[in-house]
Amino acid sequence: MDAMTRIERALAACLTRADGPGAPPRLAAAMQHSVFPKGAPIRPRLCLAVASACGESDPAIADAAAASIEFLHCASLVHDDLPCFDDAATRRGRPSVHAAFGAPLAVLAGDALIILAFQALAWGTATAPRRLAALTLTIARSVGMPGGIVAGQAFECEPSVEVAAYHRAKTGSLFAAATEAGAAAAGVPCEAWRMLGAKLGEAYQVADDIRDVVCNPDELGKPIGQDVALGRPSTVAELGLAGAVGRLQELAAEAVASIPACPGATELRGLILQESKRLLPKQLAQQAA
Amino acid sequence: MDAMTRIERALAACLTRADGPGAPPRLAAAMQHSVFPKGAPIRPRLCLAVASACGESDPAIADAAAASIEFLHCASLVHDDLPCFDDAATRRGRPSVHAAFGAPLAVLAGDALIILAFQALAWGTATAPRRLAALTLTIARSVGMPGGIVAGQAFECEPSVEVAAYHRAKTGSLFAAATEAGAAAAGVPCEAWRMLGAKLGEAYQVADDIRDVVCNPDELGKPIGQDVALGRPSTVAELGLAGAVGRLQELAAEAVASIPACPGATELRGLILQESKRLLPKQLAQQAA
Repeated sequence: MDAMTRIERALAACLTRADGPGAPPRLAAAMQHSVFPKGAPIRPRLCLAVASACGESDPAIADAAAASIEFLHCASLVHDDLPCFDDAATRRGRPSVHAAFGAPLAVLAGDALIILAFQALAWGTATAPRRLAALTLTIARSVGMPGGIVAGQAFECEPSVEVAAYHRAKTGSLFAAATEAGAAAAGVPCEAWRMLGAKLGEAYQVADDIRDVVCNPDELGKPIGQDVALGRPSTVAELGLAGAVGRLQELAAEAVASIPACPGATELRGLILQESKRLLPKQLAQQAA
Repeated sequence: MDAMTRIERALAACLTRADGPGAPPRLAAAMQHSVFPKGAPIRPRLCLAVASACGESDPAIADAAAASIEFLHCASLVHDDLPCFDDAATRRGRPSVHAAFGAPLAVLAGDALIILAFQALAWGTATAPRRLAALTLTIARSVGMPGGIVAGQAFECEPSVEVAAYHRAKTGSLFAAATEAGAAAAGVPCEAWRMLGAKLGEAYQVADDIRDVVCNPDELGKPIGQDVALGRPSTVAELGLAGAVGRLQELAAEAVASIPACPGATELRGLILQESKRLLPKQLAQQAA
């Protein structure tokens, strides 16, 4: 089964359990809207690729880790889009959750997805219960305090913030969790896999800053120019557009170089290089080539 | 060490880990404000009492379960108080989190506490990793979909709702988790302990409905008359005040009768009876006696 199908099935299976007997239908619908149709599930695919490269014995564990990471990513988007943060009316080219269901259900959908993320891990590790703690701690660290997504988002409420720390928490941390959790799902020590995710997360954030400046809203599926409009830290503001493109290429090379020795290292290197090339908007990729 | 001290230390130790190097200070402060000074930690004490009655071998596991449950309870209060829900300016007699820190940090503090709740379980079960899954699933079920706190809160966004289902999800579920998790922390099968928590949760909710009508705001530490003002389901509206008091006493008796056979059953029965009596506001307790 290919990675996209595995991820889609794992997400759908968890959402079905959440939408069990007696579930409030509008909250169930808001959760579904938060997750499907999904964007490119870059973090879950990274998680599965690492688990496979590490020689996983039970793919269901990596599927659970991938689903957990995607639920947490979706939860962070739903809460980021709330009126009290970005007040974004669209996401992935259609109404954001609060625009479609109202702010109360958007708050609850985010909460419910965070909880579902940890349930997914416990359900998925039934055959290997000793892997649950490593997965829980790795993934929780990437979204919680002091250095995960919520911390990154909270930096927007502080009087001043260092750009690198902000990006590391808000974006890098969940990429680092994706690679670490892939290794943990395969039952191998995961700390050595952190660098790969951290570098890719940084590359992805730089690409996001670039797209915020050069894309049109249809291409992006969400409003553009938000970093400048909201006075948020941005690599383009810091280094200029050409500097940001150069930084992205540097990070992709560092990511590939960081891959630890493992049975599937060669294939993984190829995959990472190929994915990195897709991060740049088309017109810039052609200029850079 | 007494239960209150154990709970206070467990909560403080987890919050200290969350407020680690690089943590955004205002979010750390908002989390602290959400948890301390705490109200009567009725659910964590229940969890510790059950673990002790079941003959726990390692109190650190029950401490972690108790802390997890309290963090989730606090998270639900912080999100419930948000402007898009109850818009409550006070909680436990002082400013609510959104009143003190703003809505963005209140959303994030709730999120961070939910994540911390699952981290607490993984940290606390290091000596007994096989208990982590049972604790995670029991506790997650009580706060997530389809029948936990978020579902209960979401019923407020549905066109109609059955009062019993609403209370079961919004209040009963976390009490049920407290008793189940106490048993799971002690390493014994936990399903038989669900009824005790469910009955106590129902009793507590009935008591809350009563206090909303008969207390003054200083006594309650939060605004009164909210059920009527917000058109929320309430046992007092359904059964009248005397009917609600009678129902509360019935539930306390059913709770005590449900306690499964265990080494500390007699002591636990005494504790539950004593706690139940404290649920009624003083003037009503005197009338009822």
